[in-house]
Amino acid sequence: MKVVVPDDLVESAETKIVLVVIDGLGGLPDPETGATELETARTPNLDRIARNSDLGLLLPISRGVTPGSGPGHLALFGYDPIEWSIGRGVLSALGIGFDLREGDIAVRLNFATLDTEGRVTDRRAGRPDDEENARLIAKLRAGVSSPAPGVDIFFEGEKEHRAVLIIRGENLSADLSDTDPQELGVPPLHVRPLADGAEESARLVQQILTEAEKVLADEPKANTLLARGFAAYERYPSMTDRYKLRSRAIARYPMYGGVARLLGMDVVPIPETDADSVKVLAEGFDEYDFHFVHFKAVDSRGEDGDFAAKVEAIEEVDALIPEIEELEPDVLIVTGDHSTPSRYRAHSWHTVPLLIASEWTRYSREASFGETSCRMGELGIFPAVELMTLALAHAGRLAKYGA
Amino acid sequence: MKVVVPDDLVESAETKIVLVVIDGLGGLPDPETGATELETARTPNLDRIARNSDLGLLLPISRGVTPGSGPGHLALFGYDPIEWSIGRGVLSALGIGFDLREGDIAVRLNFATLDTEGRVTDRRAGRPDDEENARLIAKLRAGVSSPAPGVDIFFEGEKEHRAVLIIRGENLSADLSDTDPQELGVPPLHVRPLADGAEESARLVQQILTEAEKVLADEPKANTLLARGFAAYERYPSMTDRYKLRSRAIARYPMYGGVARLLGMDVVPIPETDADSVKVLAEGFDEYDFHFVHFKAVDSRGEDGDFAAKVEAIEEVDALIPEIEELEPDVLIVTGDHSTPSRYRAHSWHTVPLLIASEWTRYSREASFGETSCRMGELGIFPAVELMTLALAHAGRLAKYGA
Repeated sequence: MKVVVPDDLVESAETKIVLVVIDGLGGLPDPETGATELETARTPNLDRIARNSDLGLLLPISRGVTPGSGPGHLALFGYDPIEWSIGRGVLSALGIGFDLREGDIAVRLNFATLDTEGRVTDRRAGRPDDEENARLIAKLRAGVSSPAPGVDIFFEGEKEHRAVLIIRGENLSADLSDTDPQELGVPPLHVRPLADGAEESARLVQQILTEAEKVLADEPKANTLLARGFAAYERYPSMTDRYKLRSRAIARYPMYGGVARLLGMDVVPIPETDADSVKVLAEGFDEYDFHFVHFKAVDSRGEDGDFAAKVEAIEEVDALIPEIEELEPDVLIVTGDHSTPSRYRAHSWHTVPLLIASEWTRYSREASFGETSCRMGELGIFPAVELMTLALAHAGRLAKYGA
Repeated sequence: MKVVVPDDLVESAETKIVLVVIDGLGGLPDPETGATELETARTPNLDRIARNSDLGLLLPISRGVTPGSGPGHLALFGYDPIEWSIGRGVLSALGIGFDLREGDIAVRLNFATLDTEGRVTDRRAGRPDDEENARLIAKLRAGVSSPAPGVDIFFEGEKEHRAVLIIRGENLSADLSDTDPQELGVPPLHVRPLADGAEESARLVQQILTEAEKVLADEPKANTLLARGFAAYERYPSMTDRYKLRSRAIARYPMYGGVARLLGMDVVPIPETDADSVKVLAEGFDEYDFHFVHFKAVDSRGEDGDFAAKVEAIEEVDALIPEIEELEPDVLIVTGDHSTPSRYRAHSWHTVPLLIASEWTRYSREASFGETSCRMGELGIFPAVELMTLALAHAGRLAKYGA
């Protein structure tokens, strides 16, 4: 079925939408109790709101497909994550909070180990710790120079063996092949152009990587860099343009703010605690129409495989909800970008509980906020990419389609 | 929304998937009890599994559309039955277990009756019985010769008035018009080429049909053949290529094995009983990743219009389930290719109960296996063509989408 593009129907209004994303919200039942993390958690506030909400289950990408954080959030914001895939390099740069500009090329780097004959023996250089990562980055910054006039390069560390290289200049192309051979016992590959016009960019990047290898030559472990996922940073059609929403992101992890910035949202300085996030939400609440608030801990506890800790993290979010309610948004949405069942210890493909509270819901008084209740809800199971349309409708921001 | 083609995300694994297809599984309620055949049947094993499964309802093709067996199964295997339509001739040839080779042209034939002026008076030649069908086929085989050097022809009987003609040779085209006029009182049509390059094939086929009519001229009823649904046999992208699954079909009716072979599955010799099918499943279980087991009787009893007999046939399948469970597949799926409500006495468009059992389900302890319970299930109603993606996810065979 073709989805109506809501963009054509969008109208301005004075209404406020708050989207609370509890990262990794969905779970799987505890075999003892049959209840998921969310169903086990004491969430009096979310349950109270659920009784006046439309409930449903979001399908992040499509059935069976587990989303990464980038695609998961793009879908929530109404950007088809298949059409708008974010390259790995750009996602990494966003993840460390690097201030990407349009046209920048970003690529993920691994510190790796070569033997004396130039063959890769460890694609992760023995997993250096973060301090070691920082030392190696400083060494690269000091030793590797720009490959051409007008071209700026930035080495940025991530965690362990991970780093990012950003290249800024005119007319650069990201249509470049990886140098990571993805196997041991062979030398790194050369950067090759994958499209016409990418030849010069390939040459520049190869020059940077060759020089970096010289700088790292005396390192016992991290004596080379493997590059993969070249991606150009291009601004997406903004939330303002598409939805006439002045939009703001409040997130404590840089990547989520980065994805939001990609869509033209304003991003607040990183709050120190989740409670601070809610305080920031209250400040300047009137200056924006759409507020995206991201809570990370629930996902992290899911990835830890700690059911009880995930339950507790959900309860902590629940305790913050009344302060959000006090702001009296016209539309309050609570959901996640994907499921992270603690038993699965990773992102999963399972659907995600969703609650939409507004004046215009077809609520069920028996509801609570949990997978089972949402399964019985008004909204059924539907693709996350359709959520924004519903949000706009509840906010009185969508015109009638057709006469 | 575009559906992610999961093929790009497929990873290898050691996991086993068993897909049990209970042909024609879905039904309609008995007006007395309000319970369908499946809900009426005593199915302690399927009910027990359902309590730990994700349940849902499969939409075989799309809303309101009743699938034939070919499209119904293609969808279950993740092949869009609209995109990958199997021509009628090929489906008929598969249905009788004919060993089609790539490039073969197959076409469905009807024995039919012409009056003395060559006009069709009965498009089914008075529905000959199967013995009569066999006699007529033998007569055609003896009397009709190959129309050209290097071209082989095969007449194969089906049931009653139905037969198949397979033509094997170099560079044959199936872009040919039917000769069945679909009405009475007019003569059969001539075979016409429907595309450039099909002229020679049209001439050959017309020659065969003209010669066949001569051979049948002295028959009182079956004195001609009407051809419809010319189709070339081409292999589809295989399950191995698409899903990295070594796949096997265990089916007692040749057509189902034929469809499976089309997708590159290995097909075991036809088991004599359903119990034998399960024995075959156990043998060589380790040599395959994906096992498709087909049970036919439930559909047949539905077509008979016998509610009680369909209930009994379902109970007989249920009794075989524990032996399948003993093999401990990582993913066990039980569903049907379509509904065959006994009150409707035919394939229908209704959704089909689905159960997916794996370690990663969001089960409901109150569930049983039936239409109503599946309607309340975690998976909702979704197109059958998306089932394989879910199966691969539950089997740990799909990578995350995006970083």
